[in-house]
Amino acid sequence: MIDIQYSPEVAEARAEGRPLVALESTIITHGMPFPQNVETARRVEAEIRAHGAVPATIAVLEGRLHVGLTDNQLDRLGQARDVAKLSRADFAACLARGGDGATTVAATMIAARLAGIEVFATGGIGGVHRGAEDSFDISADLHELAKTPVTVVAAGAKAILDLPKTFEVLETLGVPVIAYGQDMLPAFWSATSDMPAPLRMDSAAAIAAAARMRAAMGLDSGQLVANPIPAEAEIPAEELRPVIEQALAEAEAQGIAAKAVTPFLLGRILELTGGRSLESNIALVLNNARLGAAIAVELGKTRS
Amino acid sequence: MIDIQYSPEVAEARAEGRPLVALESTIITHGMPFPQNVETARRVEAEIRAHGAVPATIAVLEGRLHVGLTDNQLDRLGQARDVAKLSRADFAACLARGGDGATTVAATMIAARLAGIEVFATGGIGGVHRGAEDSFDISADLHELAKTPVTVVAAGAKAILDLPKTFEVLETLGVPVIAYGQDMLPAFWSATSDMPAPLRMDSAAAIAAAARMRAAMGLDSGQLVANPIPAEAEIPAEELRPVIEQALAEAEAQGIAAKAVTPFLLGRILELTGGRSLESNIALVLNNARLGAAIAVELGKTRS
Amino acid sequence: MIDIQYSPEVAEARAEGRPLVALESTIITHGMPFPQNVETARRVEAEIRAHGAVPATIAVLEGRLHVGLTDNQLDRLGQARDVAKLSRADFAACLARGGDGATTVAATMIAARLAGIEVFATGGIGGVHRGAEDSFDISADLHELAKTPVTVVAAGAKAILDLPKTFEVLETLGVPVIAYGQDMLPAFWSATSDMPAPLRMDSAAAIAAAARMRAAMGLDSGQLVANPIPAEAEIPAEELRPVIEQALAEAEAQGIAAKAVTPFLLGRILELTGGRSLESNIALVLNNARLGAAIAVELGKTRS
Ligand SMILES: [Mn+2]
Ligand SMILES: [Mn+2]
Ligand SMILES: [Mn+2]
Repeated sequence: MIDIQYSPEVAEARAEGRPLVALESTIITHGMPFPQNVETARRVEAEIRAHGAVPATIAVLEGRLHVGLTDNQLDRLGQARDVAKLSRADFAACLARGGDGATTVAATMIAARLAGIEVFATGGIGGVHRGAEDSFDISADLHELAKTPVTVVAAGAKAILDLPKTFEVLETLGVPVIAYGQDMLPAFWSATSDMPAPLRMDSAAAIAAAARMRAAMGLDSGQLVANPIPAEAEIPAEELRPVIEQALAEAEAQGIAAKAVTPFLLGRILELTGGRSLESNIALVLNNARLGAAIAVELGKTRS
Repeated sequence: MIDIQYSPEVAEARAEGRPLVALESTIITHGMPFPQNVETARRVEAEIRAHGAVPATIAVLEGRLHVGLTDNQLDRLGQARDVAKLSRADFAACLARGGDGATTVAATMIAARLAGIEVFATGGIGGVHRGAEDSFDISADLHELAKTPVTVVAAGAKAILDLPKTFEVLETLGVPVIAYGQDMLPAFWSATSDMPAPLRMDSAAAIAAAARMRAAMGLDSGQLVANPIPAEAEIPAEELRPVIEQALAEAEAQGIAAKAVTPFLLGRILELTGGRSLESNIALVLNNARLGAAIAVELGKTRS
Repeated sequence: MIDIQYSPEVAEARAEGRPLVALESTIITHGMPFPQNVETARRVEAEIRAHGAVPATIAVLEGRLHVGLTDNQLDRLGQARDVAKLSRADFAACLARGGDGATTVAATMIAARLAGIEVFATGGIGGVHRGAEDSFDISADLHELAKTPVTVVAAGAKAILDLPKTFEVLETLGVPVIAYGQDMLPAFWSATSDMPAPLRMDSAAAIAAAARMRAAMGLDSGQLVANPIPAEAEIPAEELRPVIEQALAEAEAQGIAAKAVTPFLLGRILELTGGRSLESNIALVLNNARLGAAIAVELGKTRS
């Protein structure tokens, strides 16, 4: 077992057996510019507290795994440069050799499990990249959901990905995908899509009960809660589709490849929507934080 | 551990340490019409009893996991509507919220393991769908075989699938594929194919010994026994190929997509073969029940 | 737990707690002709001894798992015919029914774990075959690295494979890929490639520390050390590329398919390079043996 640095707030919550919600840190280091990233992180943490749970933002600082960041640590991380973006493959190496690292969905799930945290709220998971039938570029987040028993609350997978293939892979890997409160899957910035959800649940209690049942059956995997962005903050799919297609066409025309594609697409979508994509992104993360807190509260009622 | 409802027959067999063979229930709810489905299920169960083992048909009834169904329960399931088709992803959710569910290969393997049953007989496993290089549509059965230590006796994968890709995925995942009594893989309705089998075994005892050896090595996965349909009941591959191709062409022409494809293809193949495909299907399931019973008997001699 | 036959040398090393390095045996039975195969195997073993560790060549002889081969056993294996090439899927079956088998990367990892050996040195791992977007032909070695906690030292994946897809799959599966001493990934016969390495480490101690950290985090998987061939022995990528392309074109023109492709390609590359590819192959295996020994020595300092 590794040594985990808990913030005073998280340490106290653990001692008192209060519900905890894990948060990732790549959204801070790679998702938004300073100081907007730190401000958003604080709003997300506050939203979790306001709904009865305790936020635990996860990051690696100087080679130590932190679960819960103090104000100073969050400020420092928000301004740090050359922070590694950690997934399952490089998480241990970062801890072994020192240095700073921000955790993706996969790495945050791993850390949450190590810290005994059962729920994790984020924006969107990674998935199957467009063109993966030729590139084989598929996020490690999908296999992590198949391996690590954490409930992940997200607005689905990021809509620049190939969403149908992403949900096929999750089905193949046996990962429950639960649309919250509707029959269709959400699509990140858009509240709905034309893809029926494999499962639908309408309460945090039902989601918590499903997690408990999976554990009782020995199915040690996660579940993905696909939580639609609030209607007032969404960019409808029919409005967003041409924007994404334009960004994709530009990426291809300019020869943007490999790991440069995602940041390029997100940057162009931000410009082409006049900043709305970022506002939507913040709204959906806050929404996921609220549902994550509610699930953590429900899980807290039945912890063994 | 979850609460399992054992039928009186299965409970007695467990108490006496007699050999058990698991059976799935989607063949009852989604494979054939009533009353043929219930009649066939009873014939399969009788075949297992006649060969020295006890059948344990698995299903979820009103949110409870049943291992072994009474006559009344089987009748009720055979006529039920809107029964969920459960796989690894939605099995726990069905148990958590109640309702009825029939178990696919993946879910039956999970339930068999929970009930301590080491052998499961079925018709054909799911696999890689035709066109999966673009759709990524691959059954969760394949990953379940890689994860759950149950010996599955089937006539290979259903022949409407992409069989070569299905066997490639099983090899990649490290799943033993054992042709019973011949060098070539069977192809569901056809006793043979042009695909050499990775492994061949000629007795139930050899299959049981391989399962025991995998467990001793800590390889906690299943093995697939590909048992050829009896010669007198087969539809030879060269006769079936144009039928499958016609059905596929019709599905494409009519725009049948996603989860509607498999039932459409099976229905058309039934019509185009004048009912022979269903007779073959019943014959191969009975044949798999016999071999499953023989393997269970052999495993019973060496249970630790 | 299965019964393992340790050679006297390996048994003594285990009793004394000395560092061990596992070696595979398909390189002996399927990689080179006799007597060059046995001579090379002896040179590799000697290289490990010269660097402070004890070699443990792994094979199945008459249905028993051997960890460490005596001189006689190695001679016999080097001249045996019809030796099975064992991977995860067929390893147990070979032990259960008897017979001889040589272990691939996947099977050697399984055996190393059973024997408590933490490091394994080889030439190149298997991976994604060219054309796998249509054939789905992907080596079981990749999933084994995701499952079995052994550090594998190789010169990357064999360069006749689709290397970019191979490294994508390893990333998806969360397997650390560590280039040793350089920023770019090696490509088997060539010391470098145009693919940046996900991780770089410059000492055996760093690699050992990363393995220990993964175990402490409960990440029970392997790590791949991609160790570049020594500069003096390499065939530079720009020189090798047309050779590989010619061999691939010939394979296609001659209708070579399935399992016949790899031996055909390796044979043609040997001819087209006038024997240099084999010399390079031997040089890189010796180089990997040295690094494997150094890692085993480092791991020995921190064994719990
Ligand atoms: Mn990727
Ligand atoms: Mn499917
Ligand atoms: Mn292959």
